[in-house]
Amino acid sequence: MNHPATIGTAVLDRLHGLGVRHIFGIPGDYVLSLYQLIEASPIKHIGTTREDCAGFAADAYARINGIGAACVTYCVGGLNTVNAIACAYAERSPVVLLTGSPGLSERTRTPYMHHMVRDFSTQRDVFEQMTVAAITLDDPLTAEREMDRAFAALLRYRRPIYIEIPRDMVHSPLHGSGKPACIDEALSDAAALAEAIGEVRMMLSAAHRPAILVGAEVGRFGLHDDLAKLVERLNIPIASTLLGKSVIREDHPLYVGVYGGLIGRDEVQQFINESDCLLILGSILSDVEDVDARSPLMTEGRTIHATADRIAVKHHRYEAIRFQDFVRGLGEAPLPSFPSRTLPAPPSPAGPALDPAGPITLRGLFGHLDTILNEQTLVIADVGESLFAAADLHVHRRFEFLSPAYYTSMGFAIPAALGASCADPTLRPIVLVGDGAFQMTGTELSSCVRYGQAPIVIILNNRGYSTEREILEGPFNDIHEWQYERICDLVGGGVGSRVTTQQGFEQRIAAALADSTQVHVLNVLLNPADRSPGMVRLARRLGKKLSTDKP
Amino acid sequence: MNHPATIGTAVLDRLHGLGVRHIFGIPGDYVLSLYQLIEASPIKHIGTTREDCAGFAADAYARINGIGAACVTYCVGGLNTVNAIACAYAERSPVVLLTGSPGLSERTRTPYMHHMVRDFSTQRDVFEQMTVAAITLDDPLTAEREMDRAFAALLRYRRPIYIEIPRDMVHSPLHGSGKPACIDEALSDAAALAEAIGEVRMMLSAAHRPAILVGAEVGRFGLHDDLAKLVERLNIPIASTLLGKSVIREDHPLYVGVYGGLIGRDEVQQFINESDCLLILGSILSDVEDVDARSPLMTEGRTIHATADRIAVKHHRYEAIRFQDFVRGLGEAPLPSFPSRTLPAPPSPAGPALDPAGPITLRGLFGHLDTILNEQTLVIADVGESLFAAADLHVHRRFEFLSPAYYTSMGFAIPAALGASCADPTLRPIVLVGDGAFQMTGTELSSCVRYGQAPIVIILNNRGYSTEREILEGPFNDIHEWQYERICDLVGGGVGSRVTTQQGFEQRIAAALADSTQVHVLNVLLNPADRSPGMVRLARRLGKKLSTDKP
Repeated sequence: MNHPATIGTAVLDRLHGLGVRHIFGIPGDYVLSLYQLIEASPIKHIGTTREDCAGFAADAYARINGIGAACVTYCVGGLNTVNAIACAYAERSPVVLLTGSPGLSERTRTPYMHHMVRDFSTQRDVFEQMTVAAITLDDPLTAEREMDRAFAALLRYRRPIYIEIPRDMVHSPLHGSGKPACIDEALSDAAALAEAIGEVRMMLSAAHRPAILVGAEVGRFGLHDDLAKLVERLNIPIASTLLGKSVIREDHPLYVGVYGGLIGRDEVQQFINESDCLLILGSILSDVEDVDARSPLMTEGRTIHATADRIAVKHHRYEAIRFQDFVRGLGEAPLPSFPSRTLPAPPSPAGPALDPAGPITLRGLFGHLDTILNEQTLVIADVGESLFAAADLHVHRRFEFLSPAYYTSMGFAIPAALGASCADPTLRPIVLVGDGAFQMTGTELSSCVRYGQAPIVIILNNRGYSTEREILEGPFNDIHEWQYERICDLVGGGVGSRVTTQQGFEQRIAAALADSTQVHVLNVLLNPADRSPGMVRLARRLGKKLSTDKP
Repeated sequence: MNHPATIGTAVLDRLHGLGVRHIFGIPGDYVLSLYQLIEASPIKHIGTTREDCAGFAADAYARINGIGAACVTYCVGGLNTVNAIACAYAERSPVVLLTGSPGLSERTRTPYMHHMVRDFSTQRDVFEQMTVAAITLDDPLTAEREMDRAFAALLRYRRPIYIEIPRDMVHSPLHGSGKPACIDEALSDAAALAEAIGEVRMMLSAAHRPAILVGAEVGRFGLHDDLAKLVERLNIPIASTLLGKSVIREDHPLYVGVYGGLIGRDEVQQFINESDCLLILGSILSDVEDVDARSPLMTEGRTIHATADRIAVKHHRYEAIRFQDFVRGLGEAPLPSFPSRTLPAPPSPAGPALDPAGPITLRGLFGHLDTILNEQTLVIADVGESLFAAADLHVHRRFEFLSPAYYTSMGFAIPAALGASCADPTLRPIVLVGDGAFQMTGTELSSCVRYGQAPIVIILNNRGYSTEREILEGPFNDIHEWQYERICDLVGGGVGSRVTTQQGFEQRIAAALADSTQVHVLNVLLNPADRSPGMVRLARRLGKKLSTDKP
């Protein structure tokens, strides 16, 4: 090499080697040297309007691409990404947060530098709460080992890591550089793996109604094909968590639906709960799934529960097995195949016929949307009705559905569209977003316009925080109404429209699908009292929980 | 009382007792019970579009009102406020962050609840890094003592505190309630105070060129009048830090200007540095002031340096003296009075005459602005040129200038206008904000429209991150240009205009000042190469620091 590796180039080389082609963020004086290196690297910088949007964009990028990255300045930048990185941590998305900090040589001179909060380590201390590795590369002697440890943790857990480089260390040559970047991953213990798979085989052999529940981690590890092969070879019915929706294509004959106690359909819930051997792959179980520790599935030792953290069989755990080795191992093991069973009926699109000239409703909107999804569309759902009503949409291939379904942070969807469009420009994002969520991050459409992207944004405008309304109504749930379609005038690009009827919606969405040259924004004026069946179920259950708190 | 105090009502009673009349935030299911109580309390809820904006609004409110508060839901709400609370911590603004969390009774049932990051304490662990007290009120027996300890810390240090109430504890009756809310503050040690003031008297008696440097904490503790009296009785010249700008009225005959090595004028810098006894009141010294630990002022023991943290005299410290007692004690002590001295000349508004039909420039804009400020205007400056050029404006009374001058977080100004207008509706905010900062939080104008406020927003549109451009130019400093005046169409209120000439600016600002019924937005199209003198000085100094990092 002409130029010896420096701390900065070594980090960027590894990012590139792992598949990062775009990096999201905003420059600042503590991170300018790093930006200079990015500019000279094969990685493209995508400027966002806010740092939290850079975090969400990197998260969506990672969910599709396998890894994503954001680069922001110290504290005023980094601390704006805390919620987005927390989302990636909670939902297990492998995001690298790259950040600068005051130079080591400056720190001795004055104890207080601008952008500082308490001391020089405050930002890292915060991110230790929501990353699997948080490191400061302040020593050329150890920097390479430290960064490789952090990247190995990202690969092991597919969760965020934090890398801080003091601004005067970016160009420091590495000691002992010259060897190619190599990130060692710990492998599984072969005997433990064989033992665990043997146990699964025994359990399945004794089972009559086995089922699989699949979560997002199967996607994070790129195991979609391995999973589909496993399901088909065993002929076992499969449900997905809401966060795992689209990990298996939903028109698959063995797919039974989304399992989730709070919004899921009773038929799917019952089918899974009655299985006598449940293989849970790549999902934590939370109150969103509503499987609690006292469920018979858990207490009676009828589950195999595999995540990146550990493989649990009945009541015991294996720590030394990697998730991907376990899933692939199952695919190769001599496991039994089962006779076909009757699956729960799909949701019936019943209800009275829609009047095309009548007011637009959630039922009409989602009913029509379900007919136009194809292999080129990517549904990105924000939280609230956007998510609950979208849960029943049928997606046709992997990656076709993105949503912060567990952490449920409002404002994810628009910046996610930016990230997703960078990760796979062949997909056309259809963004479902509530009015409250749009007010949080909707202006990030600016960056979509800037980079020539063409998401279709459907704003479910029901003038308030509907989920909260269902639980406890009060004036605090009201939102000041915007003329949302005018966002296009503000950011200087795209086509905005107001939609009030079913017919109007169908025409507008058709026009948007036919024009992939620009952003389309549909401000859909819903009756504020309109609710999807999923929302009604969720609010009823959350309300029941809340009612126990009342005086 | 008809209703016995509960954990929730006790916290709200204390907030109200300390002067909180507005609380900023967004509801969420973990905090709805608390919202219900706020609705029934004399405190008014102000809904914002984003949680970080609630934090900035509460910060600005606190800077004017003496205390401010925000109320947000668990993690997805709270973690969005991290940067705003960090700003309040760094700049010593007393903000109470109130938040909910999963109910204690729910936590045993499932280890993962929606909105959770790592474990139930993650959010509090984060805020421990940027508050002077972070508490969870999960026990009715200790809740009252805990909240009083937190409020006492806020009063002692005038910095943020964090109060979390699990949602099933909000309505829990307090044990031993009934007595009025009483927050005990630790008092100063009288002997220590007398000793310290005696030392100051000795130092002043031997001095010939004493000076005072005043910072923001004098404002946070409401000591404006005490300071003015002290300055006048001693007849000592006074400079302010940038963050402390407007703590003393700038038309005061003893006021010499803003002291700050990075952007300040050389005359002020020199005048203060040459004093033989410097009384620094209520300011940390950072790289923004550019006073380093090796400065003769510090090394030769010629300073008295008082902050809320401690009182330092020469090279020793007093820990047991409260800041406000020290300042008031100085005001009452028999200190010497000094003969009047020649002060540094004020900045000359020199330069060629402006062509009214010529393009608008920073010099023309700020020159004109300086002539129209009065006792009813409040300048709120975001960072970058908004701050650096505004540093030379002359403000006429206390509270007339708000800016995140030390932490320098972009996006502070617009939400700060919302908070300031709630804190003092008689003030007319004039908001100076760059294009980059406006893209971050400009849509919070929505809330100004919602609540009938009428800030005047001047967008310094120079198509990029100018501060960064001065240090290291690259395409990453470009910003996608918005039609900023169209924000009024989006949020459904206010008057927007584009300004290209000096004349146009003068007309538009006059029209805005004459109409206090609505928001006015001026999109001022500057030449991207235009720079204020302050910016040139700052960038030169920051650039010099950065250049030491280059390879």
